Amino acid sequence: MIILSCEENCIFCKIVSGEIPAAKVYEDEHVLAFLDISQVTKGHTLVIPKLHEENIFELKPETAKQLFGVVPKIANAIKETYKPLGLNILNNNGKDAGQAVFHYHLHLIPRYGKGDGFGAVWKDHSSQYSADDLQLIAKEISSSLK
Amino acid sequence: MIILSCEENCIFCKIVSGEIPAAKVYEDEHVLAFLDISQVTKGHTLVIPKLHEENIFELKPETAKQLFGVVPKIANAIKETYKPLGLNILNNNGKDAGQAVFHYHLHLIPRYGKGDGFGAVWKDHSSQYSADDLQLIAKEISSSLK
Ligand SMILES: [Zn+2]
Ligand SMILES: [Zn+2]
Repeated sequence: MIILSCEENCIFCKIVSGEIPAAKVYEDEHVLAFLDISQVTKGHTLVIPKLHEENIFELKPETAKQLFGVVPKIANAIKETYKPLGLNILNNNGKDAGQAVFHYHLHLIPRYGKGDGFGAVWKDHSSQYSADDLQLIAKEISSSLK
Repeated sequence: MIILSCEENCIFCKIVSGEIPAAKVYEDEHVLAFLDISQVTKGHTLVIPKLHEENIFELKPETAKQLFGVVPKIANAIKETYKPLGLNILNNNGKDAGQAVFHYHLHLIPRYGKGDGFGAVWKDHSSQYSADDLQLIAKEISSSLK
């Protein structure tokens, strides 16, 4: 019995290796950008590290820098091409957050107006938290920084 | 008549300078993280560059690297603290994409299950694009890279 590693079963690793084709937008030593086939909006692009890291919790700082350092350039190319009204960048970590492929990826989603395919559900809970509550939450999180 | 620059009217610049208080989670030379008062979900944190840059189109590669290089650390601190099921990272660029403060910021939104306050509207348009269509779109975008 052969047990394949996660990476060997990863569709994005196969796109990086060329085993599976993709509509490539940008490539350098560390980063690949290609179109999301779902095209939530026209020009919807994924930016991934070539290295297989599953999510933001696993992402090495060096990988994070290499990846995000080229995002402004790719965002500007999308803007230049399709003149969207705006652009959302989304990253889903974990199945419950909508992650479907477990190789880190950023969605770049150009926006063309309401009903274009993307939107955010956004509940404001500000009335439920006092300034002291917020200070406590911030303290709890910052004390977990490593 | 005094005309204030954009930065002088910017609420996030005032948080950086200390003129307006915030529940701070993380701070270094280039980056500040603090709680979003709307707390879309508990622990909802903003990560911003101290430098005023409006959106992803304006963000300098160096700023992008400094910013995103610390996101894994902050995401892990949120995970450690509140044990969410997942985490979404969202960045809105332009009013039509939901941007409300025009100083670049990433939303880190821990997820606790459906109905927790955040979600994405996500229309799959894969049936509308052939492989050739995608190659053409990718070519159009990549030829706009600078
Ligand atoms: Zn992979
Ligand atoms: Zn500002």
